[in-house]
Amino acid sequence: MKLASYSYQNKPSFGLVTDHGIIDIPKRLGDSYLDLRSYLASSNYAEADKWLAQGTVDYSLEEITFLPVIPNPDKIFCIGLNYDEHRIEANRDKSANPTVFFRVANSQIGHLAPMLLPKESKNLDFEGEIAVIIGRKGRRIAEEDAYNYVAGYACYNDGSIRDWQNHTHQWGPGKNFEGTGAFGPWMVTRDEISDGEILTLETRLNGEVMQHATTDMLLFPIPTLISYVSSFTTLEPGDIIVTGTPGGIGMKRNPPVYMKAGDVVEIEVSRVGVLRNTIVAE
Amino acid sequence: MKLASYSYQNKPSFGLVTDHGIIDIPKRLGDSYLDLRSYLASSNYAEADKWLAQGTVDYSLEEITFLPVIPNPDKIFCIGLNYDEHRIEANRDKSANPTVFFRVANSQIGHLAPMLLPKESKNLDFEGEIAVIIGRKGRRIAEEDAYNYVAGYACYNDGSIRDWQNHTHQWGPGKNFEGTGAFGPWMVTRDEISDGEILTLETRLNGEVMQHATTDMLLFPIPTLISYVSSFTTLEPGDIIVTGTPGGIGMKRNPPVYMKAGDVVEIEVSRVGVLRNTIVAE
Repeated sequence: MKLASYSYQNKPSFGLVTDHGIIDIPKRLGDSYLDLRSYLASSNYAEADKWLAQGTVDYSLEEITFLPVIPNPDKIFCIGLNYDEHRIEANRDKSANPTVFFRVANSQIGHLAPMLLPKESKNLDFEGEIAVIIGRKGRRIAEEDAYNYVAGYACYNDGSIRDWQNHTHQWGPGKNFEGTGAFGPWMVTRDEISDGEILTLETRLNGEVMQHATTDMLLFPIPTLISYVSSFTTLEPGDIIVTGTPGGIGMKRNPPVYMKAGDVVEIEVSRVGVLRNTIVAE
Repeated sequence: MKLASYSYQNKPSFGLVTDHGIIDIPKRLGDSYLDLRSYLASSNYAEADKWLAQGTVDYSLEEITFLPVIPNPDKIFCIGLNYDEHRIEANRDKSANPTVFFRVANSQIGHLAPMLLPKESKNLDFEGEIAVIIGRKGRRIAEEDAYNYVAGYACYNDGSIRDWQNHTHQWGPGKNFEGTGAFGPWMVTRDEISDGEILTLETRLNGEVMQHATTDMLLFPIPTLISYVSSFTTLEPGDIIVTGTPGGIGMKRNPPVYMKAGDVVEIEVSRVGVLRNTIVAE
């Protein structure tokens, strides 16, 4: 199933996305679940299957405004240099361990929301990625057991302000400008995608393909990432692991390609959907 | 005044620390403030002054267990290489901008809590620092206005797992092991320390002075840090800026000094207090 966070008449909510519209979950369950994060923690989708079978929707897709799939995650782990073509264009050596940096929640936006080019920079770049959403609490998770902690998958655009990313050797500032991390449109739950199934990831800028890769090209596959990250911290439902971007980023093109006001950037992940955002200058 | 978060009979709370004991704030204000973070957001300390004048305490210091000053911050910004002696021992060039990386909330512990040497490493190192706690929401804060966003100051031990910190060029994993970031014992509110007043910072390991510096040695002073960080993200009440560690870290000594089970590490900040933790091996 597809689960999304959204606002309806300016009130945040979450629910199931169907071809006919949105099935609002708090409307049916009352306030027992405040947000998608707490709903994932319950791991109880039995009623959701029933609602999908009934087919009655509450809102059309046009009536809602998408929010980041998880608007209030406890932690967002971003993985760098996880496709070899990107590692090479970034002039980085191979590493025995994943490269991990962090995003903060308020850097995120939802599907169709404006992606912000801040007035501090002209160097807004795209990074198409696959996000793994955690569904179960766990520490020191073995690779063999890792998929049992996955709630689902979504598209992510790890929008990067390149000059600020390279202010120092730590990437945090350039990866955390408000309105630069697009996450959506929804998550597809794990039961719909076989563990380890090869997914295709594509980034398009104004319709032109800029990045294209498949998940068998990941240097550190999803179970390795879950195991590594959970070595140092306890994963919680709603935590996000953004698995890294393929080759083809704008900064490493000749001449460099940065996104400007009016550009439309799309991230497509097979079996998941298309995340679309338009650049707006602050 | 001194504000602390703590648990009493296993229930989290927060209050004022006095020489005679703890004045519990939720006990007096009811549940209108859930935690110290929301109390700081209110910026209403008028009643607190009254309670301090009355002098009636609710608990002795022995009855409470200190929690991290802010157990649930939205964001923890850590500043690297912000004292020249440490920059030089770390073999890093001077930089025009602060080095920023992130901690996650669940890496934190309170005063007197065990600091954890994880089974993944033997390289637990201290980093004495001064933490600035934000009291007011703001974005793009000018340096001249920055102190108006400060709620107070505390001691911080940015405990670092050095081998994991250096797994790759991004420091996140080694800076986020659970039970390694000590934050306390309490915060001293801004009204007690003049803006820009020079504070002394000292780290002691088993009583021996390992780091000693004053805040006039900060390469990027507090207003610059607030301005820089708020360039890319909105600061919220309870956010923390950990301002960097002086020279003298264990890893750069000859031979290196790492903390082992039973060691007692203290961070003292003048006008604030002493944060003390004992190392416990997992």
